[in-house]
Amino acid sequence: MAKDFATREENYSQWYNDLVIKADLAENSAVRGCMVIKPYGYAIWEKMQAQLDKMFKETGHVNAYFPLFIPKSFFSREASHVEGFAKECAVVTHYRLKNSEDGKGIVVDPEAKLEEELIIRPTSETIIWDTYRTWIQSYRDLPILINQWANVVRWEMRTRLFLRTAEFLWQEGHTAHETEMEAIEEAERMLEVYADFAEKFMAIPVIKGKKSVNERFAGALETYCIEALMQDGKALQAGTSHFLGQNFAKAFDVQFLSKENKLEYVWATSWGVSTRLMGALVMSHSDDNGLVLPPRLAPLQVVIIPIYKTAEQLEAISAKANEIMLALKLKGISVKYDNRDTYKPGWKFNEYEFKGVPVRLAIGPRDLENGTVEVARRDTLEKNIFQLTDIENKIEHLLESIQENLYQKALSFRENNTYKADTWEEFNTILDTTGGFVSAHWDGTADTEQRIKEETKATIRVIPLDAKPEEGKCIYSGQPSHQRVLFARAY
Amino acid sequence: MAKDFATREENYSQWYNDLVIKADLAENSAVRGCMVIKPYGYAIWEKMQAQLDKMFKETGHVNAYFPLFIPKSFFSREASHVEGFAKECAVVTHYRLKNSEDGKGIVVDPEAKLEEELIIRPTSETIIWDTYRTWIQSYRDLPILINQWANVVRWEMRTRLFLRTAEFLWQEGHTAHETEMEAIEEAERMLEVYADFAEKFMAIPVIKGKKSVNERFAGALETYCIEALMQDGKALQAGTSHFLGQNFAKAFDVQFLSKENKLEYVWATSWGVSTRLMGALVMSHSDDNGLVLPPRLAPLQVVIIPIYKTAEQLEAISAKANEIMLALKLKGISVKYDNRDTYKPGWKFNEYEFKGVPVRLAIGPRDLENGTVEVARRDTLEKNIFQLTDIENKIEHLLESIQENLYQKALSFRENNTYKADTWEEFNTILDTTGGFVSAHWDGTADTEQRIKEETKATIRVIPLDAKPEEGKCIYSGQPSHQRVLFARAY
Repeated sequence: MAKDFATREENYSQWYNDLVIKADLAENSAVRGCMVIKPYGYAIWEKMQAQLDKMFKETGHVNAYFPLFIPKSFFSREASHVEGFAKECAVVTHYRLKNSEDGKGIVVDPEAKLEEELIIRPTSETIIWDTYRTWIQSYRDLPILINQWANVVRWEMRTRLFLRTAEFLWQEGHTAHETEMEAIEEAERMLEVYADFAEKFMAIPVIKGKKSVNERFAGALETYCIEALMQDGKALQAGTSHFLGQNFAKAFDVQFLSKENKLEYVWATSWGVSTRLMGALVMSHSDDNGLVLPPRLAPLQVVIIPIYKTAEQLEAISAKANEIMLALKLKGISVKYDNRDTYKPGWKFNEYEFKGVPVRLAIGPRDLENGTVEVARRDTLEKNIFQLTDIENKIEHLLESIQENLYQKALSFRENNTYKADTWEEFNTILDTTGGFVSAHWDGTADTEQRIKEETKATIRVIPLDAKPEEGKCIYSGQPSHQRVLFARAY
Repeated sequence: MAKDFATREENYSQWYNDLVIKADLAENSAVRGCMVIKPYGYAIWEKMQAQLDKMFKETGHVNAYFPLFIPKSFFSREASHVEGFAKECAVVTHYRLKNSEDGKGIVVDPEAKLEEELIIRPTSETIIWDTYRTWIQSYRDLPILINQWANVVRWEMRTRLFLRTAEFLWQEGHTAHETEMEAIEEAERMLEVYADFAEKFMAIPVIKGKKSVNERFAGALETYCIEALMQDGKALQAGTSHFLGQNFAKAFDVQFLSKENKLEYVWATSWGVSTRLMGALVMSHSDDNGLVLPPRLAPLQVVIIPIYKTAEQLEAISAKANEIMLALKLKGISVKYDNRDTYKPGWKFNEYEFKGVPVRLAIGPRDLENGTVEVARRDTLEKNIFQLTDIENKIEHLLESIQENLYQKALSFRENNTYKADTWEEFNTILDTTGGFVSAHWDGTADTEQRIKEETKATIRVIPLDAKPEEGKCIYSGQPSHQRVLFARAY
């Protein structure tokens, strides 16, 4: 069953969609654009959440919860925010249903119309800054370092599981600071947290940098981002951290009395990652045999499968398997012993391979005689015979190797798919053949960026933080440029 | 500052509201009926979530996520469910806003009207059973044991922080089974999980039982519940677990091929607890000095406050405090050392007392000389001098005693406020003087229950599982009755 889906070569987009659905990560729901996150997918998301939450708390943040609804008028307060967010939104206009007059169903009660429409939050800056106004009077009330785990809704026309859905799950940090410097430091700190998480847990190498003005968050003075490269050569924005200046403080009149006894506007940041990361995870590592999950985020890290003919053999194998399970669990490794007799070993091998379980152990009668176990790793599909002595440490070490190997493989891929282009022709050729990141000079104007986007569908993904100054000419306009930026077509 | 709020005696309702707001648990938001859960309140909710989630997983459940939106027509499918839930709902009718023609704001785009309105989930049976239809074909696909952590919306007219809000956070379990017996066992198992959680973690004694037909969940064949008694003598429903029979399976056509190769409808349960538990927690234990939190749910279990005059004293005290902190942390006890010099010790004492921190340690110069520490417990307000030797074990033991004491105190309160009534006059007198649970005979009819409710505002809170058969006459109608049930006025 597992192999019954498109290969990456045949149709990357179909491969992704098939994989998400057939590996039981998520599926489309009865509501247009909204997905159901299935238990296996949600278990991965829970691991992501737990790790991110830990990292947020280690950097001094606390969680809170703000309303799902935002009064429509709040969106008009911050001028650029309204352009960016108050368009494709779910709008609540009524608060009651009633039985229809023909008795055959229910209808919206026209008498229960809201005075002011409520918008389902597409992001919560407005409602949160309206709340912060009453929380902040003095510099003693600062900083406020709050994160929220929540669902948000953006009415997307073309949706794809995890990558772009009308409703999605995310976290949004919203911090308030005394000074500009402190807010910028916070935005940069959270970019580092996201990059660390992506690289160490998701095994996805990312480029850290800033967005161009065109690609900035609506209402931000600076948007920092991490960008990753998928196996089809398209880029994916994996997380953003915004320095919002005093824009929201001014829009919602949030002032504080400074140490110098002056009334000043508060400085802000916001930052978020979402269930989109699930899409990045799938697309970065998986292959034509199914999911490949990095051990640190795999809900199940090791599966043990018995190979037997007789009940006596099964009993002896089970005794050994239980020993191994216990030893692995004491190491904090998640492990399952699949002794179902309704499925053959070959079927189980396929199943766990397809679900991306990092390590598979198989034990047969000969292994019992020899004190060995067959160990298969999902990332390389290699099989080896291990002596059972000290097996828990060997497996722990193997899981670390797989984690590292996935990262290195993804890094090599990115390096092999990052190109320099010095002419418009080169630029176009790269985009139309290999894809990938294209490092090129740009004259720094929004107009040029817009034209490049219209002509090639490529956008400036990121102005890397570690870019070296280099004199050159804009790939499009020929005007002078002082550093290269990274272009790509993107998700 | 802490004492500036109503006492329970003066105005219980005001006391509760003041406490929730001033202790930084939650506040009302700019959106009618929706609350903001502040970091301190959310930290308690996170501890509740973590423990419940652990208990759900230990009983074989997994988490998943279903859409926020439910198509309006789904509510009409299950006849009694529509009566119960498809009334006071938030209704999404449009999916786009646009700039107003006068350029002064934004308006709903009349062209972006949904073909079918979407309802913000008030509970998710309908959308989940619509999904289960595609997941269940054979008995091999059963049971499905899924839980969801989510926000839900019920458009309440009169709201109270945590107890009744338009939007609230909760978990909802939705399980699917082969047989009636298995589903009933599941509903009863989850009732036990809720009761365990309430008693062992929240330190709230609860009565386990069933609801009368009138009080059943819309669509359930049986609603199990746990009921607690608050300090003002009113009851609070703290959790419910429903045996749904085949109602939702029939409404959404969810059938499976049984082991006997017959097509049968699936049996269902659902069960949930919500942020309402936060209200129960506050109202069960707190007093006129502020919050009282059971140690197992307190975000901060121990605070250490230095008492000093000179910098040298502070330095010596801090060294000792850090030693104690480390020892407590190694025990898994959460502890904070408050050495802020902007506040006096007395102010800090009040503050932590008000916030319900279970144990306060104070260390002064004389304590250093004597190798002692002053230990104050929040539940009884007692102070004692402890020798520092083995302090971490003494504090651990003290926290356990506080947890147990809170439970016993609440249990005594409930026992002292549970009355038997054998006449209608007694029944009314109890309700109008002491309040509390009233154990009385009832003829078993919905009509009588309804009349009692209309005349006294008391409802049947629970038909206790452990009720003994007893012949008697209905308190209201005089008709024969075979067991007592518990009445009360309720939140």
